[in-house]
Amino acid sequence: MTATHPVETLIRAADAAITAEDFDRLMDFYAEDATLVVKPGLSVSGKANIRKAFVAIANHFQHRLVVSQGRMELIPGGDTVLVIMESLLSYPESGAATHVTRRATYVFREESPGNWTCVIDNSYGTDLLDQ
Amino acid sequence: MTATHPVETLIRAADAAITAEDFDRLMDFYAEDATLVVKPGLSVSGKANIRKAFVAIANHFQHRLVVSQGRMELIPGGDTVLVIMESLLSYPESGAATHVTRRATYVFREESPGNWTCVIDNSYGTDLLDQ
Repeated sequence: MTATHPVETLIRAADAAITAEDFDRLMDFYAEDATLVVKPGLSVSGKANIRKAFVAIANHFQHRLVVSQGRMELIPGGDTVLVIMESLLSYPESGAATHVTRRATYVFREESPGNWTCVIDNSYGTDLLDQ
Repeated sequence: MTATHPVETLIRAADAAITAEDFDRLMDFYAEDATLVVKPGLSVSGKANIRKAFVAIANHFQHRLVVSQGRMELIPGGDTVLVIMESLLSYPESGAATHVTRRATYVFREESPGNWTCVIDNSYGTDLLDQ
């Protein structure tokens, strides 16, 4: 058995914060100069802009977005980790519950020993190339 | 028009070095503590191990592997860049020329101003989750 990587724990906590709409807590997971891919063709950088984007996302999903994790692969290299992960989204659409699985890519950086933050949050993974 | 990001130039030069089997030149593109995903389930870290893996890959493809780039998206965050890219491989298989397109994910880090190195080379992208 291998111990859980700290980044895995952070991702589970961050997804729980998105679901709870606890945006102050959520911002703890991001580096000051992080980038979020909001949707294909639109990225924002910096905590203030990322926070605004999550508020807009919560509104878009009528405050009923639930985010959880499927399969996850972590690839460490240098002081970074590339995460390849199934991101499971549930939300209402046209009155019905909708479930979507994305294949996400995240980059975390170890700012100081044991202190990891997300520098790139791209929940669309390689689907960005579909555009 | 936007200027070409230095990481895009590096990727084109690294792929040319793979095609030319110029492994000394190829190692210039990697950080000392970089990780290469050789195939799903097998990763190696450190320049010496990455070099050995590329020598084995060249042998596997009978010294006729040609690597080039299709569509590419760069997502900068902090001192890193996540690259989402079509990696086009051509090689002989059972006597015929074979062409494969992978959707790769690379992470580059800016070691010092203008000096970028690859810390994670995962040419399998989110297909790692297929296992």
